[in-house]
Amino acid sequence: MIFAIVGLGIMGGSIAKAIRSSADANDKIYALDKNNESLYAALTSGIIDKAFTPSETDKMLSEADMLFVCLYPAATLEFLKQHKNDYKDGAIITDISGVKHELSVSMEEIRPANAHLILGHPMAGGEKEGFAASKGEYFLNHNYILIKPKEGYEDEAAVKKLRTIIKKMGFTRITEVDADTHDNKIGFTSQLCHVVASAMVESAGDPEITSFGGGSFEDLTRIAMINAPLWTELFLANREKLVAHIENFEAQLNNLKNLIETQDANGLQSLLADVRSKRIQMQKN
Amino acid sequence: MIFAIVGLGIMGGSIAKAIRSSADANDKIYALDKNNESLYAALTSGIIDKAFTPSETDKMLSEADMLFVCLYPAATLEFLKQHKNDYKDGAIITDISGVKHELSVSMEEIRPANAHLILGHPMAGGEKEGFAASKGEYFLNHNYILIKPKEGYEDEAAVKKLRTIIKKMGFTRITEVDADTHDNKIGFTSQLCHVVASAMVESAGDPEITSFGGGSFEDLTRIAMINAPLWTELFLANREKLVAHIENFEAQLNNLKNLIETQDANGLQSLLADVRSKRIQMQKN
Repeated sequence: MIFAIVGLGIMGGSIAKAIRSSADANDKIYALDKNNESLYAALTSGIIDKAFTPSETDKMLSEADMLFVCLYPAATLEFLKQHKNDYKDGAIITDISGVKHELSVSMEEIRPANAHLILGHPMAGGEKEGFAASKGEYFLNHNYILIKPKEGYEDEAAVKKLRTIIKKMGFTRITEVDADTHDNKIGFTSQLCHVVASAMVESAGDPEITSFGGGSFEDLTRIAMINAPLWTELFLANREKLVAHIENFEAQLNNLKNLIETQDANGLQSLLADVRSKRIQMQKN
Repeated sequence: MIFAIVGLGIMGGSIAKAIRSSADANDKIYALDKNNESLYAALTSGIIDKAFTPSETDKMLSEADMLFVCLYPAATLEFLKQHKNDYKDGAIITDISGVKHELSVSMEEIRPANAHLILGHPMAGGEKEGFAASKGEYFLNHNYILIKPKEGYEDEAAVKKLRTIIKKMGFTRITEVDADTHDNKIGFTSQLCHVVASAMVESAGDPEITSFGGGSFEDLTRIAMINAPLWTELFLANREKLVAHIENFEAQLNNLKNLIETQDANGLQSLLADVRSKRIQMQKN
């Protein structure tokens, strides 16, 4: 089996590494990137078997049995549009884009004639960018979301094959939802968290503030070492759902502020007890 | 040297364990708690050498060379008021209270006649409560804050002794500030984070939301497994400073929301780039 990765950054690189460490000896991993350094590093370390430059895209696509498109969201859409007729017969094509609306409403323009496109989202990553920061271990015990179209999957056997590879990469829970549900849930668990962490860092004022930290601020804002171009794209692509989540959060924050301001000890304590039991319940899920 | 701990919960227990693992063989550790189970567990595991019930408080205090009062803030104030004349001559008395205003304005009522009171705040802890959850390892590479009165310390030699023990417990950075600065900084790094994490959990709605998590939501809200009575007391004791921090955060959040709502890609990207560089700078401090 030939795996191929388009975009060998932190995510594409981590996928290559996770596949390498779990693949059969006969399997091959190909990768395409505009950055020759990343390709060279991946090739010489044995993570990939063959490197392709952008001008060799068609050649790589014609051989790949399973293709991971690991580009930013707008570039992913563009790539899928442009290459819908370039895949090997029966290949499985998937992506890692953090917002699915645009891809899902563009399905007519990106659906391959002779291959299977299944949209997906590995829920893992690190604070840094690039192949050098990639690690297969990011995926261990993490979640993977597959986008199941409202009308059902076009080919169940292809989904089954992809699920097998995802499990082999170390992911433990695969959730299947439609694009709208994905964007709504991710708008909360991922995007709102990045917005909140960013607002927290901006409101810090003092760069020496961490000498007063006990771990809470550090944990909460680690994700604020944010990839600005990527997250700008993600936030804007999901802006309606994200803004609704921000406003819901603002209402809860305001409620807490009022309880503190009015010194409502009973109300505050019972709210915090509710927070605690909800969060402990989430820990178990 | 005889160390004594009042309140053998997660913090008192962790202090006992950290001292035990770094103390001289001749040093003794005493502890007082109303919970006999905690005392028994600490005694039988060799963490403490002698256990005292509340009715034996005076006996313990008369022998202790260094006393850690590890109670909730209001109980700490009460304890220090009540026992200001009960310490051994020259003893060092310290606390772990997360807000210092009330203690610092009550100094006349709590300052011992024959011993040295130095207010302090170990910046570490875990999500759980009680002696069973205590660990000396919580303190490794963490921050400790000592409250330096505006008029200076009453006894520098006592501060030096306390600093030596703090370092032995594993803390790597000791910051000395006045009570007002402490409460303001902690209102941000610790309390605002707990408020934000709590608002985030309350706005989640869906207890199954973690199946869509990639780590951000989990890291951000871990501290929301909050001890409701303790944090109610802390939030209310520092309410003016905390509310100001919440409002400052709300303004930053609102700014981000506006950039997203108006699709200001340039403004958003440049703000996120600023967030990233500020957060990376904080990592270094």
